[in-house]
Amino acid sequence: MELIILGSAAATPIENRNLPSIALRYKNQILLFDCGEDFQRRFAKAGLKFNKPMKIFITHFHGDHILGLPPFLFRLSLNDRTAPMMIFGPRNLFLYLYIHRKILGLKAKYPIKIVEIDHKNQKLIEFEGLDSEIPKRTIKINGNLIFETNYFSIKYALVEHSVITFAYAFIEKPRYGKFVPERARNLGIPESNLWKKLQEGQIIEFNGKLIDPVKEGIVGPERPGRKITYSGDLKPCKSLIDLGRDSDLLIHEATFAKALAETAEDKKHSTSIDAANDAKKMGAKQLILTHISARYQSDALILLEEAKEIFPNTILAEDLLKIELK
Amino acid sequence: MELIILGSAAATPIENRNLPSIALRYKNQILLFDCGEDFQRRFAKAGLKFNKPMKIFITHFHGDHILGLPPFLFRLSLNDRTAPMMIFGPRNLFLYLYIHRKILGLKAKYPIKIVEIDHKNQKLIEFEGLDSEIPKRTIKINGNLIFETNYFSIKYALVEHSVITFAYAFIEKPRYGKFVPERARNLGIPESNLWKKLQEGQIIEFNGKLIDPVKEGIVGPERPGRKITYSGDLKPCKSLIDLGRDSDLLIHEATFAKALAETAEDKKHSTSIDAANDAKKMGAKQLILTHISARYQSDALILLEEAKEIFPNTILAEDLLKIELK
Repeated sequence: MELIILGSAAATPIENRNLPSIALRYKNQILLFDCGEDFQRRFAKAGLKFNKPMKIFITHFHGDHILGLPPFLFRLSLNDRTAPMMIFGPRNLFLYLYIHRKILGLKAKYPIKIVEIDHKNQKLIEFEGLDSEIPKRTIKINGNLIFETNYFSIKYALVEHSVITFAYAFIEKPRYGKFVPERARNLGIPESNLWKKLQEGQIIEFNGKLIDPVKEGIVGPERPGRKITYSGDLKPCKSLIDLGRDSDLLIHEATFAKALAETAEDKKHSTSIDAANDAKKMGAKQLILTHISARYQSDALILLEEAKEIFPNTILAEDLLKIELK
Repeated sequence: MELIILGSAAATPIENRNLPSIALRYKNQILLFDCGEDFQRRFAKAGLKFNKPMKIFITHFHGDHILGLPPFLFRLSLNDRTAPMMIFGPRNLFLYLYIHRKILGLKAKYPIKIVEIDHKNQKLIEFEGLDSEIPKRTIKINGNLIFETNYFSIKYALVEHSVITFAYAFIEKPRYGKFVPERARNLGIPESNLWKKLQEGQIIEFNGKLIDPVKEGIVGPERPGRKITYSGDLKPCKSLIDLGRDSDLLIHEATFAKALAETAEDKKHSTSIDAANDAKKMGAKQLILTHISARYQSDALILLEEAKEIFPNTILAEDLLKIELK
């Protein structure tokens, strides 16, 4: 599992910081959080592949967080993509993309679902393809769970900002223990489908004997899943703390330094201090500061220093930074 | 008058070529032709100022020619712009921007006019501001003239492409002769408002005498205006030749090399050869090849070589190339 910062700027791109976007590579798919203009270039530069299953999560409808989405979808339409795509975001997400279908001729030959989060009515409104304005289905949101697979779930929270804004948490399910291939080989089990079952902790029958991979030490004990929380834009609020509780990694906006706390408050953004306090409150293990105002260029390290005084395990985001999560 | 290539790629950006956009600096204002994604960065890098009067001309609604416009307008809204703006393009241009107003909260506190070219009915449909869906006025197009000032006019032509596409010509009016300040000084005329009148070829009264700047050699004889034609995307067609007749500079798409003439024909694009032939047919003085397919990277010079065989005074566009027009 690898996290890649595709853009770490706030509203205005600077030479070495592009507009907000974050990628998570996980089990042959890509999860994207926000789509700032021109993130497609850093997506390619990071070595990410355009024809992978993808889920995209848009935090809110400010230009710097979404205007890279239509160009990315145009690029996918050129590239003969076949892998499925889901895009989550606030109400009107479909209408916004539909206009690109209608006026600019955007096409999607691959399976695509647009899912609007209707937080007021606690519903997901799901559209299939770009052609029909009529939602395919409406689903009641269970707690704040908006997506789930065998391996992970995505939860959201409504946070405080100048427009409707969501934070998202990626929550991995408990994982099988670490696989020790030598143990399987020592028992004479050939590399086959049986290995896959053992890796998943299943008891198998082999040569008439039942083999329990945990007892035999073929897999280690179950490990807890990993959790990553992405704040979007926000001023400190309780809903983020609740969503991000015990995260392994919190990616938090830190538009301003401490000295501009009043500006942050006015604009419903966060300072380095706010980010560090949030990380501490939710019991996060690591913090990444991102969404850095264009006013900080060579002096952006001030944000890091301020945050570290409160939350030492902090990193300052930079474009194309890759973090391997173990 | 300076022309700046802000993007010379076709549909997909590559390391050193961004999506299509061209700027023309002329008498304290900026004219922009097409707005490919992220052109705002090259706009800033070229030293262009965000608070200048601007006219933007969109050739057509393919993503690579327009998706940089909304982010640019968002940036202008952050920058407290006051200078006026006009944006010309095909029908639905207003609706496309209006969706950004309604869903993404795009604001324009500066004077902004959106002008849709309704070529079928030979009308311009003009909207003022981003708030009202009701056109402010509808103007009959005179010939193919869509805009005119004291100094220049803009004409358009409908050209052949896979969607409704316009080419544009910038046509400068005849200019006053070159000003020779020494002559004015020699006659004892102080540097003042009088100089401005002399520069414009006006007869002035000075110390009781009438002074004719042309007769006195203070300004040279009237010079012809300059003409620049921009093709947009197209396959060769007569309407472009008619529009661009006797251009000083033709900026022509050359997506493909000669070897891919069939692909060009299929996709309603041009080859290097098509561009050179068009320059020759219209009697242009100079040709710039742009909109270069991503398949040509280190080997893009092949396009230039092919075109030069037919039209020697050809340049291959590159991003941030600046051309001073005398």
